[in-house]
Amino acid sequence: MPALAVEPLTPVAFAPFGDVIAADAARTTYAVNDGTSQRFHALGRVDNDGGTTLLSIFRAQPRMLPFAVRMLERHPRGTQAFVPLSGAPYLVVVAQDPARPPRAFLARGDQGVNFHRGTWHHPLLALERESDFLVVDREGADDNCDEVALAAPWVIATVGGA
Amino acid sequence: MPALAVEPLTPVAFAPFGDVIAADAARTTYAVNDGTSQRFHALGRVDNDGGTTLLSIFRAQPRMLPFAVRMLERHPRGTQAFVPLSGAPYLVVVAQDPARPPRAFLARGDQGVNFHRGTWHHPLLALERESDFLVVDREGADDNCDEVALAAPWVIATVGGA
Repeated sequence: MPALAVEPLTPVAFAPFGDVIAADAARTTYAVNDGTSQRFHALGRVDNDGGTTLLSIFRAQPRMLPFAVRMLERHPRGTQAFVPLSGAPYLVVVAQDPARPPRAFLARGDQGVNFHRGTWHHPLLALERESDFLVVDREGADDNCDEVALAAPWVIATVGGA
Repeated sequence: MPALAVEPLTPVAFAPFGDVIAADAARTTYAVNDGTSQRFHALGRVDNDGGTTLLSIFRAQPRMLPFAVRMLERHPRGTQAFVPLSGAPYLVVVAQDPARPPRAFLARGDQGVNFHRGTWHHPLLALERESDFLVVDREGADDNCDEVALAAPWVIATVGGA
């Protein structure tokens, strides 16, 4: 099974797939609330095809390495954001084309992601411990989730190199 | 200066003002991702008057008690969610009518809030330490923020009773 290298999650590397939701990814920052807060502005935008946007929480069980990436999914009608609430790192696996090698990113516990609409990605891959994530996505999953089984799986053996 | 009692944040008590974004506030919960995650579904809905929804981060400085509540604001064109990323408790001050006494809630570090569109509320009141919050709100603040100075301030002396 071919191995997938794990890259650090950075806004530039992740740009083809989505946005990184983290203070240090902000292009625009300004003081609000009489100077008592700093706004790291517009880290991501929701694009939900005119549908309703939901705020939900996912409680994800940790995965063990080595982990075999066997499938990907995408939401053709909307962006989807995962923002960690438990402070633990997690893996993000994405692909522009599921027939080509996916890419794997190690997200820090203070980095969320907002997948572009229609971006192929693996479901949540928590590490270390049970982890909660805020999820921002489109109401109505029935017409908004495509799944694909990969022709050949990829294995993530370690995140140590990231 | 009249004192404002601090109540625990619960979905029922907060219902007139917005939704509580927390796993234990979920009315609908189901397994996703092949049983590896639990989805606490639709804890809040975004209503942004057809505008664009942004994901931003606020980094809020902690406030000291006693704290005088002297003003409130509202966003007539959209909901606004604050979801704590730093795990610290914080205060939520809201009012249905700024001419009447506001209400103060102590939110746990694992409870976010999503203010209903147009709900009067105080800007973020972090406690204990500098705290990051994910903010989900409407793009374009220029036409979406009313402020009111209270005729007489209210003081929050302690959160100990909550």
